Amino acid sequence: MSVAGLLRRSSQPGAIKARSGADIPCRPRVRPAIVAFMIVLFTDFGGGPYLGQMRAVFARRAPEVPVIELLTDAPAFDAKASAYLLAAYAREFAKGDVFVCVVDPGVGGSRAPIVVEADGRWYVGPDNGLLVLVARRAGSAQAWEITWRPERLTATFHGRDLFAPVGAELARGTLLASRPRAVPAEDWPNDLAQIVYIDGYGNAATGVRAEVLAPENVLLVGDRRIAHARTFSDVAPGAAFWYENANGLAEIAVNRGRADEALGLAIGSEIYIETG
Amino acid sequence: MSVAGLLRRSSQPGAIKARSGADIPCRPRVRPAIVAFMIVLFTDFGGGPYLGQMRAVFARRAPEVPVIELLTDAPAFDAKASAYLLAAYAREFAKGDVFVCVVDPGVGGSRAPIVVEADGRWYVGPDNGLLVLVARRAGSAQAWEITWRPERLTATFHGRDLFAPVGAELARGTLLASRPRAVPAEDWPNDLAQIVYIDGYGNAATGVRAEVLAPENVLLVGDRRIAHARTFSDVAPGAAFWYENANGLAEIAVNRGRADEALGLAIGSEIYIETG
Amino acid sequence: MSVAGLLRRSSQPGAIKARSGADIPCRPRVRPAIVAFMIVLFTDFGGGPYLGQMRAVFARRAPEVPVIELLTDAPAFDAKASAYLLAAYAREFAKGDVFVCVVDPGVGGSRAPIVVEADGRWYVGPDNGLLVLVARRAGSAQAWEITWRPERLTATFHGRDLFAPVGAELARGTLLASRPRAVPAEDWPNDLAQIVYIDGYGNAATGVRAEVLAPENVLLVGDRRIAHARTFSDVAPGAAFWYENANGLAEIAVNRGRADEALGLAIGSEIYIETG
Repeated sequence: MSVAGLLRRSSQPGAIKARSGADIPCRPRVRPAIVAFMIVLFTDFGGGPYLGQMRAVFARRAPEVPVIELLTDAPAFDAKASAYLLAAYAREFAKGDVFVCVVDPGVGGSRAPIVVEADGRWYVGPDNGLLVLVARRAGSAQAWEITWRPERLTATFHGRDLFAPVGAELARGTLLASRPRAVPAEDWPNDLAQIVYIDGYGNAATGVRAEVLAPENVLLVGDRRIAHARTFSDVAPGAAFWYENANGLAEIAVNRGRADEALGLAIGSEIYIETG
Repeated sequence: MSVAGLLRRSSQPGAIKARSGADIPCRPRVRPAIVAFMIVLFTDFGGGPYLGQMRAVFARRAPEVPVIELLTDAPAFDAKASAYLLAAYAREFAKGDVFVCVVDPGVGGSRAPIVVEADGRWYVGPDNGLLVLVARRAGSAQAWEITWRPERLTATFHGRDLFAPVGAELARGTLLASRPRAVPAEDWPNDLAQIVYIDGYGNAATGVRAEVLAPENVLLVGDRRIAHARTFSDVAPGAAFWYENANGLAEIAVNRGRADEALGLAIGSEIYIETG
Repeated sequence: MSVAGLLRRSSQPGAIKARSGADIPCRPRVRPAIVAFMIVLFTDFGGGPYLGQMRAVFARRAPEVPVIELLTDAPAFDAKASAYLLAAYAREFAKGDVFVCVVDPGVGGSRAPIVVEADGRWYVGPDNGLLVLVARRAGSAQAWEITWRPERLTATFHGRDLFAPVGAELARGTLLASRPRAVPAEDWPNDLAQIVYIDGYGNAATGVRAEVLAPENVLLVGDRRIAHARTFSDVAPGAAFWYENANGLAEIAVNRGRADEALGLAIGSEIYIETG
């Protein structure tokens, strides 16, 4: 039964009247709402066959759990920049959600696979600093080293062979064999004064939370001074500004332009904060 | 139980015989077919963390509804070109499907968020012309301005904060608080004689419906005259031609080559129709 | 109910103790595990509106079946290179899974649409060699030409109009009208000594299975000799090596660098095996 049909049975097109502020039924509610938890992918794969193979593991082991690709183009090989992104973007998610995090240049080497639980969210990934900021910013956190190993563990794709099964089983109720360990504690700053991500529009996110800045602060990138604005439409087309992005990071943009090209920004570009 | 197992129990490999034109059972039918409606995403995000965050909203609020990414690289900031693409591609979908459309350079400014119902399909997006062609081409259409606001509305990501929840609730049976308004009526042409999309193969779609052209029409792009062909394999490798693409738009291609590079085409390139 | 809450009811943060090697319950198990079969997409679309339109077909016809995008950027127009990739990556999947394969430069021409069943996995695609390696490497295989035609068959998008419906119905239990035919038997080598894929990190996969090589073999690309290593962390940053990738292919990489740029590799680059 189509929505239009349902609407039109009781009314003519254009004749729907909503009381101000009231919701309008437009379709029979088919199922009660449930608060689902989900598996959240955070990787630097940047395309290719890797996501699909991890998704196949989830579809096989936990077909009832939604899988979300939060970020698949995190800074390649760069666990440090990625750690600040992950901490900013994870805030949006709910207790019980399971993050499977693969920025893992040391795959196949000696770094351990770990699980971190931080404020009720679960994170699976390599012990290379990627999870240090979500742990540090949490009200409470605990960590385990994963001792479980799959029958087949390739040297180059622990995302599929190890992290995905651990994440799928976590989502279904079981932490596979693990032993408690200290939470990650790399000696990295609370905010990272560099560009950590450039999106499809050329906007450049920093690793600095906007909450540690004031709107009066000016960001210095190369020889350019970038002042604050609330959003794109508050500045002229072509003008550069910084703003609090939708995930709380200070981000540099150019209204209807590409900040990366206009300002020569790339992952790792350093920024300075003029506190004057 | 594997398909192969099922097949082989009653036959040897290679021994399956089909009556001409008859379907062949190969697996127990596990569930009756249902005609599902779906949530359809149409954005200019071009990658990054935005789709995932919108998908998280759908997974939380409407986990039972399939979500389809129809287009995630619509022309950036270009509501006009996108409007013609959306109208062409929406035709394939069914009554009851809900489109969440985010090509929104004015986000955070004064443009209103709206809902349009057109021939039974529902569209959520900004009031910047993006929905004008789906409304204009429909047999019947109606529109609402969304007055509902979320607890947290960021200045730069209404896709996640506003359009996604409205789309999810529409799919589940409720139009969140809204008031009727006129359907969008930007003064744009019925067909747009420019390139509106370039796909991964370098094929360049125009905003002109093939149904308003005749196969005898020649398209002029720069100083090149492009004649019609039915499909790729009807012209020599390396030859340029225009054809009716699978969604009804006139599209320019080069057999086994890239039309964008061969002809110097980009989003916004103007085309002319030789009616001679 | 949050995972953290569940854990904390019985323990303090940091106080969870795991018996060595034992799994740890962390959430009520919500549903018994099922071994689901899935629809697996293998295409050279490289983005754009094509995947979404095929997914819409699956969501409409087989909403209960998970859909996995295994590879969406197979070598464009290159059924031969793609055939070796598909055969390598399909190994990971289970009996009953249905592959919908669209590398189809001859779409709209005379090539037939076919179905191949090989060792219990099902493949739908064009008869252009794309399925020859999965058939050849199987213990048993059988093939059909698809005689079913949809009401609307466009000249350029059989992926949506023909292959997707056939795949969806296969997943739901029916091979649409087809007639038996010989399995594909293109006269192509068992392994393809060229680059068949370059991933987002710049790693370059060959069409040669590592199992036909010995670690002592050296690969020659241009004037460079590439020796074997087990994985990235076994060589110095910047060093080139070849390794058995996670799907069994010999792959050329540079630790924390891009092999494609460092070695001038592209799809189709020939490699030689030094057996000396």
